[in-house]
Amino acid sequence: MNQKPFNLKDAVAVLERTPASLSALLDGLPDTWIRSTEGEGTWSPYDVIGHLIHGERTDWIPRARHILAGETRPFEPFDRTAQFAASQGKSLGELLQIDLRRENVAALVGMNPTEADFERKGLHPELGDVTLGQLLATWVVHDLDHVAQIARTMAKVYGQATGPWTAYLSILRDRV
Amino acid sequence: MNQKPFNLKDAVAVLERTPASLSALLDGLPDTWIRSTEGEGTWSPYDVIGHLIHGERTDWIPRARHILAGETRPFEPFDRTAQFAASQGKSLGELLQIDLRRENVAALVGMNPTEADFERKGLHPELGDVTLGQLLATWVVHDLDHVAQIARTMAKVYGQATGPWTAYLSILRDRV
Repeated sequence: MNQKPFNLKDAVAVLERTPASLSALLDGLPDTWIRSTEGEGTWSPYDVIGHLIHGERTDWIPRARHILAGETRPFEPFDRTAQFAASQGKSLGELLQIDLRRENVAALVGMNPTEADFERKGLHPELGDVTLGQLLATWVVHDLDHVAQIARTMAKVYGQATGPWTAYLSILRDRV
Repeated sequence: MNQKPFNLKDAVAVLERTPASLSALLDGLPDTWIRSTEGEGTWSPYDVIGHLIHGERTDWIPRARHILAGETRPFEPFDRTAQFAASQGKSLGELLQIDLRRENVAALVGMNPTEADFERKGLHPELGDVTLGQLLATWVVHDLDHVAQIARTMAKVYGQATGPWTAYLSILRDRV
């Protein structure tokens, strides 16, 4: 393992790459891939992209501002299923073009947070005290969690089609 | 679940997108991300990219040709650790520029395989009889498995940095 403490430059390096990586992976793919799920109650790649957009609008930067403003109220709870209404009628291509990440990364860098700021606390409605550094590290891991989820969901479309090779493809046995 | 049978057009749609998606995710990232592993005996994103290149050279297209040539000998075994020697001295940026996928996809499409061809069999050295369709479905799932592995490996760098949010980030508990 190579656990590292939160570092703004490292975090931004990932945050600014995720949208292009997901667009390159998904834009123009047939519905076979983008509308598939891992089963009842799980999300398709299309659903995940809508969820990431909702996070850009309501989660990361608003919460960072909340902490830096010294708010003592808890954060607004995040709606984990908002994308089902918000994405309605939009194609995946349209969703992928909603590039809020660029301005959110610019907003984050523009806050010019210090090492001391990363230790400042906010109140999460369920988790209690959390720091700005933890929020920003979570933003990064949340991206990567959903990249992995999209790849896993797509892989499972061909779970049976791989035949005997299934034995070597461990992703097919994750989250089943 | 939305399991689908192998389909050449769907498979090619994924195969031709993976290299650009991985380049967008990884090119230019600090070593914090690309040299990290999940622990002893596991691979960094840098190692995975070398492994994918070795597969382009020795695995997928040579095996497809082997099946279509009607060979009865088993496939050459695939060396799963060849990248540790082959990548030596090369930067990740250099590895990402080795774009063998484009010519391999062109080679696959150029074989113009029929539905009957996808049922043709080859002999895997460990798994026994496998079909061309299973080989090609495995190529796709293998890509996605490694995309997920890279995202998971990177996410774990910030496993501790996310603090209480760890509870919500299930990727941090995959393969531990």
